[in-house]
Amino acid sequence: MGLFSKDIKTMDDLFVHTLRDIYYAENQIVKALPEMIEKASDPQLKQGFQTHLQETKNQVKRLEDVFRMHGTDIKGVDCPAIDGIIEETEDVAGEVADKKVLDAALIAAAQAVEHYEITRYGTLIEWAKQLGRSDCAAKLAENLAEEKATDQKLTSLAESAINRRAA
Amino acid sequence: MGLFSKDIKTMDDLFVHTLRDIYYAENQIVKALPEMIEKASDPQLKQGFQTHLQETKNQVKRLEDVFRMHGTDIKGVDCPAIDGIIEETEDVAGEVADKKVLDAALIAAAQAVEHYEITRYGTLIEWAKQLGRSDCAAKLAENLAEEKATDQKLTSLAESAINRRAA
Repeated sequence: MGLFSKDIKTMDDLFVHTLRDIYYAENQIVKALPEMIEKASDPQLKQGFQTHLQETKNQVKRLEDVFRMHGTDIKGVDCPAIDGIIEETEDVAGEVADKKVLDAALIAAAQAVEHYEITRYGTLIEWAKQLGRSDCAAKLAENLAEEKATDQKLTSLAESAINRRAA
Repeated sequence: MGLFSKDIKTMDDLFVHTLRDIYYAENQIVKALPEMIEKASDPQLKQGFQTHLQETKNQVKRLEDVFRMHGTDIKGVDCPAIDGIIEETEDVAGEVADKKVLDAALIAAAQAVEHYEITRYGTLIEWAKQLGRSDCAAKLAENLAEEKATDQKLTSLAESAINRRAA
């Protein structure tokens, strides 16, 4: 979660810090997805990434709503976890020549991103409830539902012809 | 996934590369857990981390079995994703003074680790099946089942008194 962690004294501070962490992460994903769209060969995968880019832009707006509901500044903090996941994606995507193998690697990378988001939203929703902020919890649950659906779609794609053709 | 990604040409190469990625990750977790055990205050959480340390050591051995079954060298590759997740954990854990808030942060960090492992094992199992290596898939599925069970236990702890007391 990077910067400002020395200021975490209460559950509310931890909630805000983690909200800033996922806000940074979603913004990094908005930046990373166009390259993944470009690299993807399978039309369904390419379309799936395009849809998710639009969803992710919406999720950023929902997070800004949560910041406003909570009454705190809209800002991100460095998130070495998502930076690491994206670094792995770019590294592998830059090196794999075979289109089908590359698609399989892109799906795996995107699922690592989804799981990071799923765990962070799960945590934030639980904390929001405990802090009596069911309004924030409900908004965050919309993002969580989308991330889970995306992960499911990626699992289906991984199980489909894409990877079998590659193997 | 770091090093050697330029050598990924086939699905089998991608499988081995990702196996090395999770092997590195599990070994890093073995190194990180003792500090998390020390920092945890809640007796159930402390015990849970201790149990998971033993499990993780076993998981490393199972991965070594998979390397042997596959007939490839047992080695890791740098995994910036798990390094980033552990960096966040250490950063937050080093700064939070309140014991209950610290426990909540430790649970969140451990769940981020579990979700990274869950996504990687899910991917590896799918690829192993597609490569006709149901023996490797079965061994990897044992690790996946343990990671999912640990994530469930952590969710229960997060929902329990620990976080409510902190809030």
